[in-house]
Amino acid sequence: MLNHFCKKPLWEVSQKLVAVAGGRAAADTVIRGGKLVNVCTAEILEGQDVAISEGRIALVGDASACIGEGTEVIDAAGAYIAPGFLDGHIHIESSMLSVGEYAKAVIPHGTIGIYPDPHEICNVLGLDGVRCMIDDAGRTPLKTMFVTPSCVPAVPGFEDTGSHIGPEDIKETMQWDEIVGLGEMMNFPGILAGTDHAHQIVGETLKADKVVTGHYSLPETDSGLNAYIAAGIRCCHESTRPEDVIAKMRLGMYAQIRMGSAWQDLPVIARAITERDVDTRFACLISDDTHPNTLVSKGHLDYILTEAVKAGIDPITAIQMVTINTAQCYRMDQELGSIIPGKCADIVLLEDLEHFRVLRTLIDGDTVAKDGAMTTELAPYTYPDWARHSIHLKDAITPDTFKVPAPAGADRVRIRAIEVIPARVGDTEVFATLAVKDGQLESDTDQDLLKTFVLERHHETGTMGVGFVKGFGIKNGAMASTVAHDAHNLLVVGTNDADMALAANTLVECGGGMVAVQDGKVLGCAALPIAGLMNDEPVADMAADVAVLEEAWKTIGCTMPSPFMTMALIPLACLPELRLTNRGLVDCRTFSFVPLVVDDAE
Amino acid sequence: MLNHFCKKPLWEVSQKLVAVAGGRAAADTVIRGGKLVNVCTAEILEGQDVAISEGRIALVGDASACIGEGTEVIDAAGAYIAPGFLDGHIHIESSMLSVGEYAKAVIPHGTIGIYPDPHEICNVLGLDGVRCMIDDAGRTPLKTMFVTPSCVPAVPGFEDTGSHIGPEDIKETMQWDEIVGLGEMMNFPGILAGTDHAHQIVGETLKADKVVTGHYSLPETDSGLNAYIAAGIRCCHESTRPEDVIAKMRLGMYAQIRMGSAWQDLPVIARAITERDVDTRFACLISDDTHPNTLVSKGHLDYILTEAVKAGIDPITAIQMVTINTAQCYRMDQELGSIIPGKCADIVLLEDLEHFRVLRTLIDGDTVAKDGAMTTELAPYTYPDWARHSIHLKDAITPDTFKVPAPAGADRVRIRAIEVIPARVGDTEVFATLAVKDGQLESDTDQDLLKTFVLERHHETGTMGVGFVKGFGIKNGAMASTVAHDAHNLLVVGTNDADMALAANTLVECGGGMVAVQDGKVLGCAALPIAGLMNDEPVADMAADVAVLEEAWKTIGCTMPSPFMTMALIPLACLPELRLTNRGLVDCRTFSFVPLVVDDAE
Repeated sequence: MLNHFCKKPLWEVSQKLVAVAGGRAAADTVIRGGKLVNVCTAEILEGQDVAISEGRIALVGDASACIGEGTEVIDAAGAYIAPGFLDGHIHIESSMLSVGEYAKAVIPHGTIGIYPDPHEICNVLGLDGVRCMIDDAGRTPLKTMFVTPSCVPAVPGFEDTGSHIGPEDIKETMQWDEIVGLGEMMNFPGILAGTDHAHQIVGETLKADKVVTGHYSLPETDSGLNAYIAAGIRCCHESTRPEDVIAKMRLGMYAQIRMGSAWQDLPVIARAITERDVDTRFACLISDDTHPNTLVSKGHLDYILTEAVKAGIDPITAIQMVTINTAQCYRMDQELGSIIPGKCADIVLLEDLEHFRVLRTLIDGDTVAKDGAMTTELAPYTYPDWARHSIHLKDAITPDTFKVPAPAGADRVRIRAIEVIPARVGDTEVFATLAVKDGQLESDTDQDLLKTFVLERHHETGTMGVGFVKGFGIKNGAMASTVAHDAHNLLVVGTNDADMALAANTLVECGGGMVAVQDGKVLGCAALPIAGLMNDEPVADMAADVAVLEEAWKTIGCTMPSPFMTMALIPLACLPELRLTNRGLVDCRTFSFVPLVVDDAE
Repeated sequence: MLNHFCKKPLWEVSQKLVAVAGGRAAADTVIRGGKLVNVCTAEILEGQDVAISEGRIALVGDASACIGEGTEVIDAAGAYIAPGFLDGHIHIESSMLSVGEYAKAVIPHGTIGIYPDPHEICNVLGLDGVRCMIDDAGRTPLKTMFVTPSCVPAVPGFEDTGSHIGPEDIKETMQWDEIVGLGEMMNFPGILAGTDHAHQIVGETLKADKVVTGHYSLPETDSGLNAYIAAGIRCCHESTRPEDVIAKMRLGMYAQIRMGSAWQDLPVIARAITERDVDTRFACLISDDTHPNTLVSKGHLDYILTEAVKAGIDPITAIQMVTINTAQCYRMDQELGSIIPGKCADIVLLEDLEHFRVLRTLIDGDTVAKDGAMTTELAPYTYPDWARHSIHLKDAITPDTFKVPAPAGADRVRIRAIEVIPARVGDTEVFATLAVKDGQLESDTDQDLLKTFVLERHHETGTMGVGFVKGFGIKNGAMASTVAHDAHNLLVVGTNDADMALAANTLVECGGGMVAVQDGKVLGCAALPIAGLMNDEPVADMAADVAVLEEAWKTIGCTMPSPFMTMALIPLACLPELRLTNRGLVDCRTFSFVPLVVDDAE
């Protein structure tokens, strides 16, 4: 598709570029004497210059003749010159940051472009919310190439969201210049069953000649994966086993190897590549979800590259996986992803190919970050008021809201529960027996079984789902969040009803966010007033809020590292195995509602 | 860009494909138990099936469940299953065949798609001629993905053609579904000089989001090649040295390695790949110009693959170079070039990966050739009358037409001459001294210097260029051709004026073609009445005509193998070094007219 993410289209500047390459006009900028990471041939070439004009590359090689009076010369002696990094699948909302603040957080780490799927805000605020993020992105140099969320709600019929997206919305948004494709098609059951709705959503994207991104999380790589790919879906980031990765690559699907804050598939699934001598053009590295602490303490794609190399992937291959491969996945390689004449001058200078320390980031030929800091200011952007007040509950929340009556006459009840697994997106269904107290089912910290509620917060329906979760280890207290994929209803987990009510009400007051409370006191709170998902604070402040929150979680007994991303997936009914939405418990293997209390017959 | 070269667009059949992959509907065809050449990962996978429905691939792997009552099952035991072959740069006119006959000639050799640049017919008949070829292609299963000729005339100001193409023509044709890009931009001097005309022609293609193909024949890979690529040109087939190939690949230009009938760069330039451990995704194999004898005796891309393997290229890599790499070059890999679900079922079965014997060719799921023969009939197509009468000379041709008066008073004259080199597109400028006879310059067979004329034949201007050529070795007789790149004026070479006149007039009578005469007798003639370039005879008949002609050439003394393709380049002023057009001798290093007779001062 045409690239709208550039300073000027090539046809407006081709004559200028030719003049610069030919030494008849001075380059705006020349990077001199670096070690070029050539992602086209997978070679390192020593002593290379790059001449830049009008935001594009005019020449690679010896640029002596391109240097004139006004040319900025950047000495790259000792450094590597690589294409700027592209993240092929990312939800900005997971960083809790506005697009502007996210851009400021990742550009110094070498990221020049991202393909965000804004399905979190879309679930809350619909396409109006997406439009806000696009406007927010407009003030940044980061190439923010949005895909339209495909699955709002994530699993229709199983949850209530703030909005819904149909084929007509896809058709409309595919005409937007800022939209380059379709967001992750999580409704693989709909695709596999051949529903009109799912296939029309994909079809409208294909008709617009844009790219359909995927989400296929079944541990099945035969007829199901074939069918899913046959529907026109080009990439998938849901591989958790090496065999998933190689199966996708063999079927010509871009296998996006994930290294997010919470789900870190890379070290395991990299074996698909490192243990085989295969062409890796269909492999990419992506982050999916990164929380602010990771951005501050580890970085973004520079960190993922480091981990890839640690996992045994060749450094040049790894760089291809965040540059040319990603650009080819999105069929934008004619403009992005390599340092070749005519392309956008999106370039990083790296100190090394082990830690990938980024010395400088250029986007469209401009130095936008240097030595870890932005070198350019962004214009302000304020989200509209309606986007900042998105919690709409039917009833006031009190401790009584969280009562769970046991079946009449029972003194012990067998229930199904959700067991969460640290750093993995999958959970498992487990069974347990609870003693009934005063006719109620209560959290049982001895068994690490905690009451969990999902309260609808968009349309004041008053619906709520009730379940139990195992794995957080909380001994006393509660946590709540309006980040609760993908409907982002109000999620509350706790050991007692009073703390659960306090946690929920704290979020109602601040417009959403994440909170941990104990014994009637708020121990930590990260306010996320934009759609209950994001804040427009800088990443360092956001990370500090989250750090307090993490301490608070430890205080209440939670033993899991970064529990909030794991917790936030409790309602995501497109992932295995058992999930809880505002409509109830969902068995995600059969896509059916199941009761909390298990019949003896079961 | 959207793929118009399929049975049905994916969005119309995705539900059906999913049903077939899921075993809920029967495939139309299943290929069973072959060795899959996986071009995505560059692996051979044993025991693979391919299920096909609605002209597309539904499943790759185990297709047992896809076989129903109406399913055709093709046993591939022992055979390789590979994607059908794509030729990324080809001039159909060089085969002397109509598109229909060309398709019948190449499909049994595994070719499923070609990217023809119809610039020969366009030089003679303009876009109306191109439209005829598109209509001719419409009756064939061969995916004939045309590019609009970019350089008509090839080198403006240096020759007269039947037509000319400007930016407005490019803009118009880029809206045609059958046009996927711009034909070879031979006007690299215009690109490098930054002329509006050349850049606008490229620019209109880029604006339409289509692919610009190249032709950069300078032995220079620094600022010139950079400038040329910076203008937006994506591929080039004019590499004659390994260093040209690797330079282009490093600069992200698809290096199309040529193995045509007359110019066979592959054995030499393959070293760019075989002597380096590089990523080969930017390398392709193409034929450019193939004459009918080659198609009959050797084949098409199957032959080129064989030669590639002989040259040391790994067979899977070689197959990538005529499948996925070519599709990626044209940004059509979402539809073509690999055997993966959802893609067009364009498949070949191969006996081996050494001689690449093609057992069967499927296009859009239909078997169109088997064991070397077409299995499908084509509808007839007749070129219109105006396309079959394209020779328009001002004056009748007589032996006097070919007189070359010497400078007054001279008895010996120093001249410049064109020396042709067998099997290479380049020629060299040489100097020689001729004795004057009766005030005239004559052919001198002792020095192998032959009089050569190019007579304008499109607009009855009566212009003609005169020169001498060395290298054909003709001892007695003449040869003439209306295939004379790219203007396709009437080219005549000979030892005496009477035979030259007979040769020329023979072609005038039959509407064009190629002829050899001696002592007043026509020894061989291949009539090419369509635009003076093509015939609608089958390839075997055409090859037989050419075989007679080749014998005739030998009879008149020509020592060069397949001299007519070398001869036909004599007027092509975009190739080095010295060329002859209807306007005169052109020095192609300086792009200036030069006189036949050399000053002593020179």
